[in-house]
Amino acid sequence: MENNVLKIGIIGLGVVGTGVVKALSKFDNIKILKAAVRNKNKKREIDVQYITDDPFEIANDPEIDVVVEVAGGVDPCLDVLKTAIKNKKHIVTANKELLAKFGDEIFSLANENNVTVLYEAAVAGGIPIIGPIKTTLRGNEFNKVMGILNGTTNYILTKMEEDGVSYLECLKDAQKLGYAEADPTNDVEGFDTMFKIAILSNIVFHKKIDYKKIYREGITKITQDDIKCAKELGYKIKLIGLAQKLENDELDIRVHPVLVEENSMLAKISNAINTVQLEGAPVGSVMFTGPGAGEGPTASSVVGDILAIAAEISYTDTILPSTRVKTDVQAKQADILNTKNSYFLAINAQNARGTIGTIGSVCAENNINLQSILQKGIKEDNTALIVVITETSYEKDIQNAVKKLNEQNIKVTNLIRVI
Amino acid sequence: MENNVLKIGIIGLGVVGTGVVKALSKFDNIKILKAAVRNKNKKREIDVQYITDDPFEIANDPEIDVVVEVAGGVDPCLDVLKTAIKNKKHIVTANKELLAKFGDEIFSLANENNVTVLYEAAVAGGIPIIGPIKTTLRGNEFNKVMGILNGTTNYILTKMEEDGVSYLECLKDAQKLGYAEADPTNDVEGFDTMFKIAILSNIVFHKKIDYKKIYREGITKITQDDIKCAKELGYKIKLIGLAQKLENDELDIRVHPVLVEENSMLAKISNAINTVQLEGAPVGSVMFTGPGAGEGPTASSVVGDILAIAAEISYTDTILPSTRVKTDVQAKQADILNTKNSYFLAINAQNARGTIGTIGSVCAENNINLQSILQKGIKEDNTALIVVITETSYEKDIQNAVKKLNEQNIKVTNLIRVI
Repeated sequence: MENNVLKIGIIGLGVVGTGVVKALSKFDNIKILKAAVRNKNKKREIDVQYITDDPFEIANDPEIDVVVEVAGGVDPCLDVLKTAIKNKKHIVTANKELLAKFGDEIFSLANENNVTVLYEAAVAGGIPIIGPIKTTLRGNEFNKVMGILNGTTNYILTKMEEDGVSYLECLKDAQKLGYAEADPTNDVEGFDTMFKIAILSNIVFHKKIDYKKIYREGITKITQDDIKCAKELGYKIKLIGLAQKLENDELDIRVHPVLVEENSMLAKISNAINTVQLEGAPVGSVMFTGPGAGEGPTASSVVGDILAIAAEISYTDTILPSTRVKTDVQAKQADILNTKNSYFLAINAQNARGTIGTIGSVCAENNINLQSILQKGIKEDNTALIVVITETSYEKDIQNAVKKLNEQNIKVTNLIRVI
Repeated sequence: MENNVLKIGIIGLGVVGTGVVKALSKFDNIKILKAAVRNKNKKREIDVQYITDDPFEIANDPEIDVVVEVAGGVDPCLDVLKTAIKNKKHIVTANKELLAKFGDEIFSLANENNVTVLYEAAVAGGIPIIGPIKTTLRGNEFNKVMGILNGTTNYILTKMEEDGVSYLECLKDAQKLGYAEADPTNDVEGFDTMFKIAILSNIVFHKKIDYKKIYREGITKITQDDIKCAKELGYKIKLIGLAQKLENDELDIRVHPVLVEENSMLAKISNAINTVQLEGAPVGSVMFTGPGAGEGPTASSVVGDILAIAAEISYTDTILPSTRVKTDVQAKQADILNTKNSYFLAINAQNARGTIGTIGSVCAENNINLQSILQKGIKEDNTALIVVITETSYEKDIQNAVKKLNEQNIKVTNLIRVI
């Protein structure tokens, strides 16, 4: 770092990269030397002095102090960042997929090379969450972290509830507005939330997390019937990422839709807003809410990380959150079948006498107590929609009960966990 | 710092001090050498190796690296901390009154002596807020910070709403539960919130704040009628601290009750919970929620600050949030009369024909448009309760209108701002 000016190379000049360049313009002690993009000839609203289409040119440039990666995806980012780290460059990245899949490798390499990797923007966009967990809240033992971590799916669920239209119509609407991609799989099937809860679990519990062992369910099966019945019972439906410590010290990490009480704080998180709740001792429960994506919010977190590195290197000021918590301990991750939850079941049954009785006895045989049961009239095809909310039960018991009910032609059309 | 062990002297072993001692016990690299208390002979549930009743013994002890002050109040804490700073000790404090009144003096002295003063616990208890503003969110220009910053008053307002009983009864209940002190002035008249919003304004806007210029109103005048009428119109009443940048670059800083829409996030903050909302660019709006006081939450923030100092001094790890933003610029603070708000007026009037007409014309003469008006029947004494909500108007206009109405025997019994 010459003359107290931090020299940056940025990989990616999309929405987020553009926001970062704009937000950095007011800081005299930070200079963007180079940007790497896919298409060098594209017209851009911002001015960067040198643009290349080869990201390794940045990773190998001896003048650059910090590589800022806001391109996303594993290929070529993994190789580019590893090269940059070997060249003793600090890293700021917003790449949740890369960190969830290759975090251990990247952080080991960074420790060997004595450089810092910061990634506040990788989880919950503009919300400060990685920093507070590592600094202000560092004296705590956490037992739970839970959040609405994906703006696209929260937007779709909010629209389904407000406009009363189907998942597919809301998805199209989200795609038109730019909230969802042409191939929405990463968001709607819960992959994005899975990467984020993997990263959060790592820093909250100080354990290595195998993202492939995380139970994952998206929102594509949620119907208008689910949303209306949930509402009638006083609930809304949200997609959450959850990680909690079980009594046997296993970590229960999962991504799936849940019912949340309509009067809860979680139910108020609408549209593309994100939230993260932490529970630990001695602090108790704290909640962080804000914009989970977009140019400004993501740039805010990326710039915070860059300023932290600038401050730490120059020693003019000292504000640096540490790199990822170092740990060699692999987490024991719980099987979803061994977890306990309350459940909402949507059931479609022939309007035969005794159906409700059968539901009750199948549940009882499987150690499941019922909390509410609601029959929603008889349809034209002589079937009835019945919704059930159970008390806290084992997942394996509820899966058994669902199987038994289906065998008796009492079709469980949806199962959603309740928190 | 010998053998990589940070040596602590703690001033105050009340609820918070006890929590700090407990929470530090699991950290091998931190040792509490001495504690100063008022009564040395009191039985305590925790074990500290040396207890004194002279806090200067800690400030002057050459072995101590960090003085942790959780006693509260200006006297003797100001002199003790100044002595400690001159002796090159770092400071961690939860003392909002001291920082709001003497922050400039303390931070100047700390800069001269090259020591750090951290104070995460001084605002909003266990909620990380000072750290995130100074680190993750540091690239932002903020235009507003607002919060429910006092648990006692929020508890009282919640009880008034839930139980339908008077302010005084709820205060007694809060005193019985230990949520309010025997002399509740500091909380219920808004002084505590004023100190906290002064500290937040300083770090959010990078300006010196004169706490004596902050407009302050407590909750002692809030009646059941206010709460019921607010509810009927779709609002709840909360005590907030607010600081925002005006167009003329003045800061509008104030503490008073407000009406908040019952469906808003703010309305969900019940009992002793605190919340802080920040608005800035590029991040947008973020909100931090959690326990605002108590042994565990306050200890969490104090311990976070101690660990930050331990990490920074030892250079084994680097996580330190900086000291207070240095600035020599005094804020221009706006007069409440020049601010704009929407208003809720509770009016008691003789049941004379034309009263509503008079209210309307007095408001119109003072440039005030009405949004809602609600007459709540006729009482036995032939007076009527009328509530009015105005559109956004100047405070000076509303104050003039209130004066004019009172002169015509239309008594404005309460005025509460609406957000």
